[in-house]
Parts: sequence; C-alpha cells; structure tokens
Amino acid sequence: MSETGELERFQKYIKMKKLSSKLSPSGHEAALVTHETNIRYLTEFPNSEGTLFITRDKAYLLVDFRYGEAAQQQVSNAEVIVYDKYYDAIIELIGKYEVRDLLIESEYMTVADMHILEKRIEDTGCRVMSSDRLDKLIAQQRIIKSKAEIEKIRKAQQIAEESLTELLNMVKPGVKESQLAFELEYIMRRKGASGISFDLITITGTKTSMPHGVPGDNEVRAGDFVTFDIGALYDGYHSDMTRTYAVGQVSDEQREVYDTVLKAQLMGLAKVKAGVKAYEVDATGHGVGLDIHEQPFVSSKGETLLSDGMVITVEPGIYLPGKFGVRIEDMVVVTKDGRDNLATLPKELIIL
Amino acid sequence: MSETGELERFQKYIKMKKLSSKLSPSGHEAALVTHETNIRYLTEFPNSEGTLFITRDKAYLLVDFRYGEAAQQQVSNAEVIVYDKYYDAIIELIGKYEVRDLLIESEYMTVADMHILEKRIEDTGCRVMSSDRLDKLIAQQRIIKSKAEIEKIRKAQQIAEESLTELLNMVKPGVKESQLAFELEYIMRRKGASGISFDLITITGTKTSMPHGVPGDNEVRAGDFVTFDIGALYDGYHSDMTRTYAVGQVSDEQREVYDTVLKAQLMGLAKVKAGVKAYEVDATGHGVGLDIHEQPFVSSKGETLLSDGMVITVEPGIYLPGKFGVRIEDMVVVTKDGRDNLATLPKELIIL
Repeated sequence: MSETGELERFQKYIKMKKLSSKLSPSGHEAALVTHETNIRYLTEFPNSEGTLFITRDKAYLLVDFRYGEAAQQQVSNAEVIVYDKYYDAIIELIGKYEVRDLLIESEYMTVADMHILEKRIEDTGCRVMSSDRLDKLIAQQRIIKSKAEIEKIRKAQQIAEESLTELLNMVKPGVKESQLAFELEYIMRRKGASGISFDLITITGTKTSMPHGVPGDNEVRAGDFVTFDIGALYDGYHSDMTRTYAVGQVSDEQREVYDTVLKAQLMGLAKVKAGVKAYEVDATGHGVGLDIHEQPFVSSKGETLLSDGMVITVEPGIYLPGKFGVRIEDMVVVTKDGRDNLATLPKELIIL
Repeated sequence: MSETGELERFQKYIKMKKLSSKLSPSGHEAALVTHETNIRYLTEFPNSEGTLFITRDKAYLLVDFRYGEAAQQQVSNAEVIVYDKYYDAIIELIGKYEVRDLLIESEYMTVADMHILEKRIEDTGCRVMSSDRLDKLIAQQRIIKSKAEIEKIRKAQQIAEESLTELLNMVKPGVKESQLAFELEYIMRRKGASGISFDLITITGTKTSMPHGVPGDNEVRAGDFVTFDIGALYDGYHSDMTRTYAVGQVSDEQREVYDTVLKAQLMGLAKVKAGVKAYEVDATGHGVGLDIHEQPFVSSKGETLLSDGMVITVEPGIYLPGKFGVRIEDMVVVTKDGRDNLATLPKELIIL
C-alpha cells in the first residue's frame, strides 16, 4: 500500500469514527444508514446499494452478492457482510452488540419501510428510533467538505463551464429552449460528466421570470434574455451555476435590472466568510456536494454559522412576471478569510 | 367545450370518484396524496407540485401560487386551492369535513414528513393513518391502463425503437459503452422524448452477464454481445425494452444461449393472457406506466391475476459470469385473448 493509500485509509477511518463516536457510550445504540449519498459519503464506495450498520465499536456494510466483490475491494472503514437474507443479517448484528435503540434516517426512510423494519426486528426487543438525530449527525459532518471533495466539485464546475462556453455558439434566434437543454447535457457527457446535477434550466424570453422554468418549445429571440442554471455531476459530486445572457440587443430596463442583480451578487459574495451567519449572505442559496441541495441552507432562516470548508451558492435574482428575469449564481468554498469562488465564467452583461 | 373535452372530463371525474368512494362512508376519513406520479395519475395535471386532499364527497388540489394558474386551467376533477400556508390549508379541510382519520401514502412519505404532519395537525384531533391502505387503493387503480395511457406508452416505445435503430449504425468495434448511452439519450430527446425512463443500459463483452451493468469505458469488440436495455419517457409515461445484438461474428455457444433465451421469451409471451397468474409468465417482469417499475410485479411471488389493460414486461435472460449474457425483453398489454405487444423490433439474432 502506498503512502497516499495509507493516508486515504486513515482519513476514511476517521470519518466513520467521527460518526460512531457520537453514539451512546453504553454501546446499546446503533445507526442504520440506508440513504445512498450518506453511504457514499461515509464509505466512499460509489455503488448505490447497501446498508451501513454502525455501532460505537465498528461499522458494517451489508450488500447482496452482486456487490460483494467490489465492496470488499474498495471499502476499508467498514466490514463488508454479503448477506443472503437482509433482515437476518441485521437481527444478527443487533444480537451481537445487544443493540436496544436503532437510529434510522427519518428524512429518507419511508413510513412503510420503517414499519417493515419494526416488524422484522420485533422479537429482538430493539426499538427503532425515528427522531431526526441520525439525519442531523450525518448532515453536520457532510456540511464541511474535505480537500478531495472540493476538488471533485471544482472538476464538476469546470466541466459545466467548458460545456456552456461551447454551447453559446448555438444560442441564436430560432433555437428552442429544449434543444439548448439536451445539447448542453450532451456536451457535458462528452466532456466527462457522469450526468447532470438537475434538469438543466435553459430558458428565454418571459419565461426567465420563472426561477424554476422548464425548457420548452419557446425559441430564442433577439432582445431576449437567456438564463442558464446548470450543473454537472462528476464522481458523485455536483456543481451549480447560473448565467444570464442577452441576445442581439438589450433595452435600458434590461441593463438596469442586470446591473442591479450583479451588484447584489457581488455584495453577497463579499460577505461570505467563516463566522458569518448564512442568512446574511443571500436569501436563496444552498450547500452543494453529494446532493445538489444540502446543508447549509442559506435562506432568510439560515441561522447556520458559515465555516471553513462549506460549499454554498450565492444566487440573487430579480423576476418581473410577464417581462423577464435575471439571476447570477456562483458556487464558492467558504474560507477563513473569505471565499474561493469555484465559478470562473465572466459576469458582466454579455450580448450574444 | 367539445364532446371529446366532455368525455375526458367525465373520465377524470370517474377516476377520482373510484378512489374517493373507497373511503369510509362515515365521511370522517380523508386521503392525503403527496406522491408525484399518483397526483399526476389522478388529476392528469403534469406539474409535479401539489397535494391532493380527498374526502368521500370532494377532492382538493393544494398548490402554491406558482402553480395556481396552470392548475386552475387544467384540473377539472378537484377544486384547486392556492395556499399561503400549507398546513393551515390542510387543517382547514380537516375541520370542514370533520376528518378523524387521515390516510397517507406510507410507501412514499418519509418518517420525518409524517412526524411533521402529525405535529402540525395535533390540535385538530385527527389521526394520521400510516398503514399501506391508501398505497394499495391507488396501485389497484393504476394497474389497469386506459386506452389513452396505453397510447402514451406505445408512443414512448416507438421513440425508443426508432432511436435504437438509428444508433445501431454507430455500434462498431472501438465505440465505448458510455458513448452509446449518451448518444442514444440524445437521439431519444431529439425524437421527442422528454427524458429517459432509467439510466440506459448499453453494455458489451463480459459485462453483459450483469443484469444491471453500468455503461463504462469498455469498448465494443468483434465477437461480443451488446445488450441494450432502454426506455424513453413520453408525456409522463415510460417504456422498457431489451435487445441483445452480436458484433461481427458469434460462437456456437453464443448462438445456443441466444436461441434458448429467445425460446423462453416467446414461451413467456405466449402465456400472457387475462386470467393467468403473473408468476406463470416469467420470473423477472414488472408493470410499466407513470413509473418504470410498478404493479403488477411479475416475479416468482407475483400472485396477481393478469387482467385486461395491464402493461407488463417479459424479460428472461441467461447470465454466464465472466463470459456473457443475453436478455430479450418486450413490453405488452394484457388482453382478454392474449397480448398486444408494444415492442416491434425483430428478435432473431442480428449480427451487426
């Protein structure tokens, strides 16, 4: 094993330990992690299948036979159990560790699945704990990104930027919004994205006044704004950025609104710094990572204190129903002294 | 309103009534439908947002201001309520109808959302009923497709077939699996698909032995099988089909396995008929509709009796780990006398 390999193993070990050490020292508490991105975060195992059973002492990754070999090769911070019958494997671990309280991810598990779990483990005497405690423990950990995570997000962003730059050659009067969306996705895939971070927003004309407008048959026209709210997926990590461009020409009103949004965006960015409360930055941002929307939520209720290593978006907009809208969005890493802006495309008004 | 319009309104009215009439005649029971495809099924309103509150007498669609106008124009079998505060609107309806038991979709609602709902409506005295009763009522209704639904599925299938036919020109030694996947998606979009039904499976070589193999950097080579398990999305409805092709040449073993699978598939198809038990047809199929996997589940445990109007897949396969695999899948409508096969691409072994 190389030194880098040893360091990676150690970091993964620490990551799992950080969570398991929050479980009750009595040893009678365990956590059942079933949500895909949480499992991926904790184990760095890219396959979506599996369940983590975490005790204070040790973590287990339960997978079926299809994933056994890959899991055994790639997972170093949990013991891999290839189960034949899922609930039998869980019941065995409950017995082995005398677990009395089993925490679940209440934000992801369905009511039906919880009922099934309760019924299956009924005879062990172990209770299913359905508070949001486990959700919060994992979210608190995921909210701070490691250097390796930041590099993956940066790469996703780079793919999105290069793809948008290539697409801009196609943005001409007569092109349909929906075509821009699928051409852009196609370019992203070609440039190495494993997918898109969300349904790409490529809208024009009056539709730009809808923050979540869906690309349709509308055609780009001279004098319209075109808004691109886009993100690429790379090695499990997302990116998110919005740019608004003018086509052919702009009215004074359009220019004024654009400049106002840009000023607000630059002011929001300037406020980003470790120690600042999230809501002071902007009214619409969110964290980005293995999920496209994750903690911290930078809303008017966002009481979270920004910290070194959080990745957030700053995305103010002005929306004039029936007329047009402008949004400008960057994704930045919070640092001790300010921010590391992962978005590098220019923000001055560009007329295509 | 045209006659067609009147007929459509009537059919929508009947669809909602069918569900509401299953609620307790006491009038103290209501259903809260929050799952996207269930709302779409019941209202035929394509937007994903909203919540249905269904009493024995009347149905309400609760939406926020962004969807108010569209909902009011398009929804005819529920009264549209544009809410300011979501839970206040629900509490008002609970009060108005003196609801004591509120059914939820336990297979879709998360434990956390149920806890929030319980807490918010606590003061009304109404209980949240978390059994699977509502899930089952809706699934029973969705399992039988209307003519209009079948035509949408047929159209989705037609797009997938035309796209695959176009893609086959590209299937040559040296092409990567992942490229086949994104080129195929691109063609589908161009032909009018609103998306893909699932991550397209376009795999080759030994990976064809993995039923859910993910397209990667592997290149197509002469003498390999290439498996396409693909589906397009059209107007909310999915399609699903698998074809396995040979590249350049085939060995006797490959041909033998292929012929065996084809025979099994034809035998499975021949068994499809209203009145037959699902498990008698095949060990791996499933229903297709607004969800890519839905009832009936045609597995070895599939006790469901096939009925006129169900749409199911028949997809046997032989998988030889480390060597290759073959799967052939059609999607058919169950009829009184047999089946209407929605897949029309040939199934004899084709050597590209």
